[in-house]
Amino acid sequence: MLLARMFNALDRLRAPRPVSAHCDLPCGVYDPAQARVEAESIKAIMEKFNASDDPYFRDRATLIKEQRAEECNHHLDVLWYQYFQPAHLEKYPQLHELFWSTKKLTSQAKRANDVAIADQLLAKINEIADIFWETKKA
Amino acid sequence: MLLARMFNALDRLRAPRPVSAHCDLPCGVYDPAQARVEAESIKAIMEKFNASDDPYFRDRATLIKEQRAEECNHHLDVLWYQYFQPAHLEKYPQLHELFWSTKKLTSQAKRANDVAIADQLLAKINEIADIFWETKKA
Amino acid sequence: MLLARMFNALDRLRAPRPVSAHCDLPCGVYDPAQARVEAESIKAIMEKFNASDDPYFRDRATLIKEQRAEECNHHLDVLWYQYFQPAHLEKYPQLHELFWSTKKLTSQAKRANDVAIADQLLAKINEIADIFWETKKA
Amino acid sequence: MLLARMFNALDRLRAPRPVSAHCDLPCGVYDPAQARVEAESIKAIMEKFNASDDPYFRDRATLIKEQRAEECNHHLDVLWYQYFQPAHLEKYPQLHELFWSTKKLTSQAKRANDVAIADQLLAKINEIADIFWETKKA
Amino acid sequence: MLLARMFNALDRLRAPRPVSAHCDLPCGVYDPAQARVEAESIKAIMEKFNASDDPYFRDRATLIKEQRAEECNHHLDVLWYQYFQPAHLEKYPQLHELFWSTKKLTSQAKRANDVAIADQLLAKINEIADIFWETKKA
Amino acid sequence: MLLARMFNALDRLRAPRPVSAHCDLPCGVYDPAQARVEAESIKAIMEKFNASDDPYFRDRATLIKEQRAEECNHHLDVLWYQYFQPAHLEKYPQLHELFWSTKKLTSQAKRANDVAIADQLLAKINEIADIFWETKKA
Ligand code: NI
Ligand code: NI
Ligand code: NI
Ligand code: NI
Ligand code: NI
Ligand code: NI
Repeated sequence: MLLARMFNALDRLRAPRPVSAHCDLPCGVYDPAQARVEAESIKAIMEKFNASDDPYFRDRATLIKEQRAEECNHHLDVLWYQYFQPAHLEKYPQLHELFWSTKKLTSQAKRANDVAIADQLLAKINEIADIFWETKKA
Repeated sequence: MLLARMFNALDRLRAPRPVSAHCDLPCGVYDPAQARVEAESIKAIMEKFNASDDPYFRDRATLIKEQRAEECNHHLDVLWYQYFQPAHLEKYPQLHELFWSTKKLTSQAKRANDVAIADQLLAKINEIADIFWETKKA
Repeated sequence: MLLARMFNALDRLRAPRPVSAHCDLPCGVYDPAQARVEAESIKAIMEKFNASDDPYFRDRATLIKEQRAEECNHHLDVLWYQYFQPAHLEKYPQLHELFWSTKKLTSQAKRANDVAIADQLLAKINEIADIFWETKKA
Repeated sequence: MLLARMFNALDRLRAPRPVSAHCDLPCGVYDPAQARVEAESIKAIMEKFNASDDPYFRDRATLIKEQRAEECNHHLDVLWYQYFQPAHLEKYPQLHELFWSTKKLTSQAKRANDVAIADQLLAKINEIADIFWETKKA
Repeated sequence: MLLARMFNALDRLRAPRPVSAHCDLPCGVYDPAQARVEAESIKAIMEKFNASDDPYFRDRATLIKEQRAEECNHHLDVLWYQYFQPAHLEKYPQLHELFWSTKKLTSQAKRANDVAIADQLLAKINEIADIFWETKKA
Repeated sequence: MLLARMFNALDRLRAPRPVSAHCDLPCGVYDPAQARVEAESIKAIMEKFNASDDPYFRDRATLIKEQRAEECNHHLDVLWYQYFQPAHLEKYPQLHELFWSTKKLTSQAKRANDVAIADQLLAKINEIADIFWETKKA
């Protein structure tokens, strides 16, 4: 049994994971990784900001983080209003609140350099990703 | 041996893969998945374009594919001139040619709806990703 | 009494209505008119599209409507995740569903030239605006 | 007479004001409120900038004000070269100078945090709006 | 004398011409070539549009021309309200009308594929460039 | 002979130089001046940054330079992967390395205010322009 599951896991490892983007055509391709990559970038920028005392570097970090947070919010937006359908909402009634609080975190991530915010943002995006991949399997 | 490799594989499966974005701060986060997701979207758009004979739908597909190809090209650009360093070029002297021909494919993907182009683009991005992840392990 | 209310109404007519934009600073300026103007534009474009049989004009209408719908969606997004706070949600529990269905309408407005969709979008934005101005008075 | 005018005023209050956007299709929808909302945002950002001594907050205010001023300038631009026609210019020969000096104020609003500049910008936008609504009535 | 002037001319040929961009810092770098290059692109796109009967190619030409005209208009805008100052207006009172009619031509260039429009646009941009370089020499 | 070449040079001086833009239609219009203008702007911004000790001015200079460097990089990108063809690469095998190092300089130009970087960037762009105009003559 265990072995069978392991082989299945290996299989999934090798097969390129079905990827996902967006566009409202809709093209049908979506992937929570797009939001997650931006959130990782936000966290890395915060860490570099906190580790530096160069005002010029901090200026650049600030403006770049603003853009990354905007991109992160955009990718979340696409998942929320383009990908998810009424049937998903019925099964996962927490979706609205989950997206709202996650997007609120992108605002907070702009307004400060507290790495804990970035960690919460990443955790929320993982929650969203788990639901997303469950709906894909269904 | 096989079992050990399988466990390693499982490990990699569970551990969230180190993600990657960009920004030229640099934040140090990069991920070829960003380009790949856009290329998957391009392919899906082509397929939907070819399956439709509605001029309105085709118009929208055309303009959205143009944007996705531009995004794809942008993510490739970030990897090429921001991530890769002289030491990488020494080890992978094919990098310049590889990126150039991959970016040329984003142009071709704009100019037609030939799914074979999208497949070549995806194959090239996978080649780039393989090199990228090798440099990460090094 | 009636006269007094009429004078008040006139007063409000003359005094420039407090306007509102956005930015996530936050600057504290928001205004549902931003979304509404884009929705009016969407409706006008649909009408002109339907009245024309020139493929070149229709192409341009299609791409411009796509942009206007994107702008409309963006302004809705700002209101939803930047302006509205937990206390508002308590008083107006319908907000999440209202924004979600309104944003879904921006997708539909991209995908077709059915003026009824634009009318529904405008009606939904008016619902949002009513709640917004109520929270401002509170 | 007065009463009649008051009722008319109330009527106008209730009837949703004809809104206006832009796009060069042209869709025919324009509204000076778009520029005004951005100018209000500029003013609010300046006030918050002046009230703060946190360099991080000031950095963000600076970059966001730059964007708002750019948006404001864009909406003015649309009115000037897309909406206004030769016949308007004949009746309002001050239009070119009015738009030029208003746009110059968006530059000044970027370059400093003097609230008086924002007030002048708002006053100019109101002048433009008055002319705009007069041409609509005509 | 002639020879001396010719050598001067050659000198100017070799010396990189003082270039110009924009940004409202202001950086002080402006160049009418930026608008002109976009106008040349507009003309070339029109010619290719007219020479083709492939609806897919024409779609792409249409959306790309829209962008180029927008860029052209933006570069004109920068010259008009950022570069030119009251003293220039006094010396060249035709400037407002010149820019207005040139920008009107960018609208017309979006709305049709009449190469004569592109030629008029180019001629107007040359007029602007002549004045610009005169003010630079002054 | 010399005189003849001088007259030719004068001729080229008077005749408007064939301009060039981009768009991947492709429209066939390209011009290295687009990248060069942005690089001149970068240099001017650095000089103004270094000459000022006003943190507000420096903030604005920083964000505007970031944008100009991004534009510069974009125009280089268009030349590299859209304009240049395999036959050019054969004749100028240094092209890949030249573009790569030039684009790397746009990154460095973002990260510091060292005018020497801007000068190197301008020199590289001139090298690219020389090759470009040679291929045009061929
Ligand atoms: Ni899509
Ligand atoms: Ni980064
Ligand atoms: Ni705001
Ligand atoms: Ni419009
Ligand atoms: Ni500038
Ligand atoms: Ni082009």
